[in-house]
Amino acid sequence: MSMAPQANVADAPRATTFLDMPRLSKHLGVEFFLASETFQRTGSFKFRAAYNVAAKIHQHHVIAASSGNFGQAIAYACRLFGKRCTVVMPVNSVPVKIEAVRAYGGEVDLVDTSRMTRTARVGQLSAEFPDAYIASAYDDPLVIEGNATLGTEIAALENPPDVVVAPVGGGGLTAGLVTACRKSVRQIKVTGAEPATANDAARSLRERRIVSQDVESQTIADGARVLSLGRHNWEILRENLDGIVEVPEEAIREGVRLLFNLAHVKAEPTGALAVAALIVASDRFRALRVCCVVSGANVDTGAFAAILAD
Amino acid sequence: MSMAPQANVADAPRATTFLDMPRLSKHLGVEFFLASETFQRTGSFKFRAAYNVAAKIHQHHVIAASSGNFGQAIAYACRLFGKRCTVVMPVNSVPVKIEAVRAYGGEVDLVDTSRMTRTARVGQLSAEFPDAYIASAYDDPLVIEGNATLGTEIAALENPPDVVVAPVGGGGLTAGLVTACRKSVRQIKVTGAEPATANDAARSLRERRIVSQDVESQTIADGARVLSLGRHNWEILRENLDGIVEVPEEAIREGVRLLFNLAHVKAEPTGALAVAALIVASDRFRALRVCCVVSGANVDTGAFAAILAD
Repeated sequence: MSMAPQANVADAPRATTFLDMPRLSKHLGVEFFLASETFQRTGSFKFRAAYNVAAKIHQHHVIAASSGNFGQAIAYACRLFGKRCTVVMPVNSVPVKIEAVRAYGGEVDLVDTSRMTRTARVGQLSAEFPDAYIASAYDDPLVIEGNATLGTEIAALENPPDVVVAPVGGGGLTAGLVTACRKSVRQIKVTGAEPATANDAARSLRERRIVSQDVESQTIADGARVLSLGRHNWEILRENLDGIVEVPEEAIREGVRLLFNLAHVKAEPTGALAVAALIVASDRFRALRVCCVVSGANVDTGAFAAILAD
Repeated sequence: MSMAPQANVADAPRATTFLDMPRLSKHLGVEFFLASETFQRTGSFKFRAAYNVAAKIHQHHVIAASSGNFGQAIAYACRLFGKRCTVVMPVNSVPVKIEAVRAYGGEVDLVDTSRMTRTARVGQLSAEFPDAYIASAYDDPLVIEGNATLGTEIAALENPPDVVVAPVGGGGLTAGLVTACRKSVRQIKVTGAEPATANDAARSLRERRIVSQDVESQTIADGARVLSLGRHNWEILRENLDGIVEVPEEAIREGVRLLFNLAHVKAEPTGALAVAALIVASDRFRALRVCCVVSGANVDTGAFAAILAD
């Protein structure tokens, strides 16, 4: 077996940016700070998972379905390790997202989702390239392991939080955070923040089984539109997640504005979910020291300006 | 003499945020990274100077004229040290800036600048409060010393830059950077970035004397509208500044957009001056490793959205 290609250490995931939030804490009445992944390579925490996948698999070709942050992340991670990467995206994806995947070195495979699901197209490609690794954006032990590095950074803080609040889509981020926090001697809880209109994870916790949405939510937090939790994530989250806050759309928008205006942080809507959870459930966090994860910053400029102008 | 009040060490200026810029470096054809002061307390590098002033003076009351970042910075620094702070601001200042000074604990003294200059009003207050310290936003050895802490952080990098590019208004930031870089064993040059419509510093270097603008420029980079370099700064800059790039208004706006879109950094126009200098003078920096200082992020939301929409 040949040596696995090595990426330069300078290309490894960068440490998160911890930011204390004096003005925003005062505004919300909750003492909190951010772990901001907005400056992570490719603009979101997804690079942590993508890097771990590209580093650990022996395959030289990765196929993934993603119209969002994982697509960019896996494309860039594959380039760093000299691997080929094919990203299946809906033909009606925002052009800036298609361009971003290409800019990071990925091949974009456009699928007309009115005729064929993305999953079906991945199946076709998998048959065409049997030696390729099919990467899930959120349901893969390597993804959980990659995301856990963020939890390890948080748990290593001199003054760690009582609770970490993070967005929930497929559950890969919270599963990683839980995994890391359980390994720490510190008692750190993890709470999810999920759009109220895409609350399959909250319903799953209530019903103690994976509940799937019937149709994809059109929540502004597009990173949380996933239909259901990943199975690997569910095994971790079902017993260990300290609840989920269900966040209305308007609170998500307000979270984006507050982060921008009072903390100078550019967050995509999904990235603002945790702060938005503090808006709608401040009593729950009042007596605690809270760390909110801002998961990413990849947002269309026009859409962002529209939120600011609300 | 009573003990000087001590601020909590947690309130000291926070370390700058270093961010490498792979996409933006590629876009501009210059290898550079940021030292971003957008997450500095009160949203700009000015807190470094303000904190140093409030910490080192023995007076218990500070009077300053500032319609911008120094006003917020000195108000907050004085509060940390239990000192009174009066900030003289034009009566037609943007309300959000007046509110910000008050939110940080400062008293705002509004002056109708069509009837009396800010300097004259400071003179009146100085007569009224003879025991107060009159703080300059940019021309004071304590300001230079405070700003030098940023240069010390840059010079201490494992892989330091060949040149630091930073905005020039009154010259306090570049004077601080030069001071720190000269103390380092590293050979680090400092280059200024100044609005072309407020180019008194560039003209001063050419004419080898402090040149003052006749009227205040209306440059979008409002932190650089100062009429002339401070005298203390000039003594340092005249022999040690490695030139100044004069930046047209449109490049400043493009700098704001590039930082937001390709680097997820919210910069106020003055804060984008250094990156804008790379746009207009890329040849000058081509073979160098460059550090651009993003000096602050305090910008009106509507004005920012308008720049994005250009």
